[in-house]
Parts: sequence; structure tokens; C-alpha cells
Amino acid sequence: MESRGTRVRYALIVQYDGTAYSGFQIQDNANSIQHEIEKALKIFTRQDVRIVAAGRTDAGVHALGQVVHFDLHTEVPVDKMCISLNGILPHDIAVKKAFIVDNHFHARYSALAREYLYAIYNHPYKSPFMRFRAMWVREHIDIEFCRQAAAYCIGEKDFASFCKKTSAEESTVRYIEYITVERMFDDVVVFTIKGNAFLHNMVRIIVGTILYLLQKGKSPETMKEIIKSCDRNCSGPTAPAYGLYFKKVYYPEAYVFLNV
Amino acid sequence: MESRGTRVRYALIVQYDGTAYSGFQIQDNANSIQHEIEKALKIFTRQDVRIVAAGRTDAGVHALGQVVHFDLHTEVPVDKMCISLNGILPHDIAVKKAFIVDNHFHARYSALAREYLYAIYNHPYKSPFMRFRAMWVREHIDIEFCRQAAAYCIGEKDFASFCKKTSAEESTVRYIEYITVERMFDDVVVFTIKGNAFLHNMVRIIVGTILYLLQKGKSPETMKEIIKSCDRNCSGPTAPAYGLYFKKVYYPEAYVFLNV
Repeated sequence: MESRGTRVRYALIVQYDGTAYSGFQIQDNANSIQHEIEKALKIFTRQDVRIVAAGRTDAGVHALGQVVHFDLHTEVPVDKMCISLNGILPHDIAVKKAFIVDNHFHARYSALAREYLYAIYNHPYKSPFMRFRAMWVREHIDIEFCRQAAAYCIGEKDFASFCKKTSAEESTVRYIEYITVERMFDDVVVFTIKGNAFLHNMVRIIVGTILYLLQKGKSPETMKEIIKSCDRNCSGPTAPAYGLYFKKVYYPEAYVFLNV
Repeated sequence: MESRGTRVRYALIVQYDGTAYSGFQIQDNANSIQHEIEKALKIFTRQDVRIVAAGRTDAGVHALGQVVHFDLHTEVPVDKMCISLNGILPHDIAVKKAFIVDNHFHARYSALAREYLYAIYNHPYKSPFMRFRAMWVREHIDIEFCRQAAAYCIGEKDFASFCKKTSAEESTVRYIEYITVERMFDDVVVFTIKGNAFLHNMVRIIVGTILYLLQKGKSPETMKEIIKSCDRNCSGPTAPAYGLYFKKVYYPEAYVFLNV
């Protein structure tokens, strides 16, 4: 079956509940999503496979539409691949779709934009069902306030105030296309954020800062000053990992089948 | 503070994720919802408290609106009770509301009707987020078929075919007011069933039987014959516990505050 030299590239759309994992990326002595998927691929294909993800997710962060790519020496029907991988993978990771893609496709570098969702359970008392699924906020959240504060983040900005401090000298300029804030089922508040790329902890610090301003009785305009400061000390706390979902990756027209 | 002789009766609306429990009722050598709530009440009130529930739930079954009652020797503000109990209870059990009720109220005997919800995740591949939350059915479910089959259960009927076999000689006649079947978010199917009372496993066997008839290509009318047979061997499998939610208890007008 093996045809030396030729390689077939696959893309998978993957969902996972990040609760039990130390994050997407393989780490020594810790359980990772990448390790589980590569292990399942090894069992299924009998080949050593290295996968590349559209974006890494931190410990406890979930994915609704993570995209990964990898190469095999053999061509495998994609339906069979979905069924088999789901039969091998643990219950908290699932392959939703599989595609054969051309060799120019790259899960990370081909991505034009990413969308994240942040879920908040907004009720005086905790919910047994929202545990590990949404941040819990007791005090009633003013949606209009959140929208106004979020609006200051739209466009191309330096998000240095919303980035986990690192020694790296990389640019902290990113482009945010939109942030929507919606209340659903009375007591769930959902932030949806689309941007070209995101800094480490950026979505969680933006959400944490907006909630902090609301709680402290500050005006939504304060957000403008915080952005301008380019100082992580001026923004609010990082919202918990378990409220964050990597929702969707946007690719060019040629890979429109991945835009589900 | 203690006023001997007088007793104050409380009612709580309780939610729980039943995954980690062997059921509502206290059992030796097994973790139960009742045990956790009574333990929390003991810590909070320093009194030995025995609680009575509107309905017992089996291992793995969830509750959105279980109602329990109990008596204390002292009057405690209900808001304080909610906050304190939620601070003591494990993360998978929550008190949503607390009320002081008259001494005639009984969580089980005062109940006029009960409502259950059964959730199905209907998608070719499993969902990491529906694990322990909904039954997984790969094949597309025909909602109209389910509604037609369910319609035969409406009214006062002998539900012997839909009851876990027991040696007890109790009546198996029950009254079902309605069964609705809805598709939500494309891939979730929800059965909602309201009745005066339910036999052991009744909701799970009704749902399991309807799905079985659909899968086997039988007609919805088969349900009529299965009911008539009064034989558990004629009905389908018991749908899994983790798809079942005890949603709501209906009480007389005097306790309308409990009808949330």
C-alpha cells in the first residue's frame, strides 16, 4: 500500500473538552490534546504522525472547531478516518470532519482569522451543569456596558495590555474584526470575538477586564485608556480558562469546506 | 435561639449533575445526593436533618428542579441558607431557591405532577460536550415519527410495559398529560414528558422504545400494541440514565412560588 515519496495531506476539524488536559501542545509528564490525537493516528495508520494545529489552546480551554493538518504515506477514505479515530480517541476529544487537502494547506499559516467564544453563567447561584463550561458571575451583567467597552477593541490595535507578559520582543499589534456580546437563556452571557490572530491569554484578559470595569463602576471608555497604556498592569484579571472555546478558523476560498 | 417544640419547614429547589452519584437516595457504601445535602445541612444548622424529595432519581440521572423539604428547630433567613449551602455543597449540586413553607407541605405527597426532560445528541460523531449529558444517536431521528409514537402514551394508561420489573404488586396505571419532541440547535433532540407520577425507569423505557421502533422500521402504531401488552418484554431498551433530567415539580396553587 505504501507509495514511497508521495505524501497525502489531511485536515481534521476537532472538538474537545479541555478540562482534563494541560493544553493542546505536547508536554513532558502532562496529558495533551496533541498527544492523544497523534497516539490515535499512530494506532489507526501505523505511521508516526506529527500534527500541526491552527492555534494552541491552554490548559482547560475547549475547542468547537480546532483545525489540524498532517501527512500520511497512504490515502485513507476520510469517512473511515473519522469513524476510526473517534473509536480510538478518549470521550472528551472528537473528530467532526476530515478532508484531504493539497500540500500547500497549513492549519496555522493558511488561517486568515480565528473566532473564539467566551461563556459566562450569570446567576446568583452556581450551576452544576456549567462547571468547567463557563465562568460564574453572580452579579447581573449589563450587556450594553460590555458592548460599549468591547467596541474600543475593534480594529488594528496594540494589545500589549491584554497579553500574558513574556520576554519575547514580538509585535503585540493584532486586528479584531468584531466582538459581540449576547445574553442567552436568561442566565448565559456569550462573548464572540473574531480577529486575525490572538496574543497569549488575549481573549481571557479582554473579557476579564470588561467584567472588572463593570464591577468597579468604571465607565466603558476606561477601556480606551487601558489599550493606550500598553501595560498589562492597567488591565483586569484573566478570566478562567474553562469559559473559553476556540470556535472556528477561517481559511481562503480554496479551503471553503473547512469553514463549517 | 432554639425554641423547643416548634419546627419550621423549608423547601429547596435543587439542581444536580448526577454523574458522580449512585442516585438520590442514601445507600450504604455509595455516594448519594441525599447524603450530600443532609451533610451540608448538618454543617450549616448543627442539627441532624432528614430531607424528603419530590422524586428519587437513579444513578447518573440529573435534576434541574428537584424539590426537597425538611424541618429545623430554628428559623433561618432563606437567602442566607442558599448562599451557605452552596458554599458547603460539592460543585455538582446547587440550591437554586429556598422557601419557608407551612407544615402541611410535603415535597412528595403535595406534588400534583412531575416533568422530565430526555436529551439526545443526534449527530454522526460523538460530542465531547454531551458526554454524561445526553444519549448519543448516530442515525438521523425523525421527529414526526417520535411525536406520533409518543401520542399513544397520552392519558391514563397502564404502563406495565414501561416499568422496570419488580415483585411489587402496585398499580402500574399512570396519567401522562403531554410528551413533546423538539429538535434544537440542529443536532439535539429533546423529549419533555409531564405526568402525575412515573414508574421506575418509565421515561427512559418510553424514549428507548420510540427510538427502537424508529431504528427497526416499525410503524408508530406499534406503540399502541406495546402498551396493550402490559409486558416489559414487548418494549424496547432502557435509554441511558445520563440523558434524563428531573425538570420540574408541580404543586397546588398555595405553593405557586415553587413552580419556577
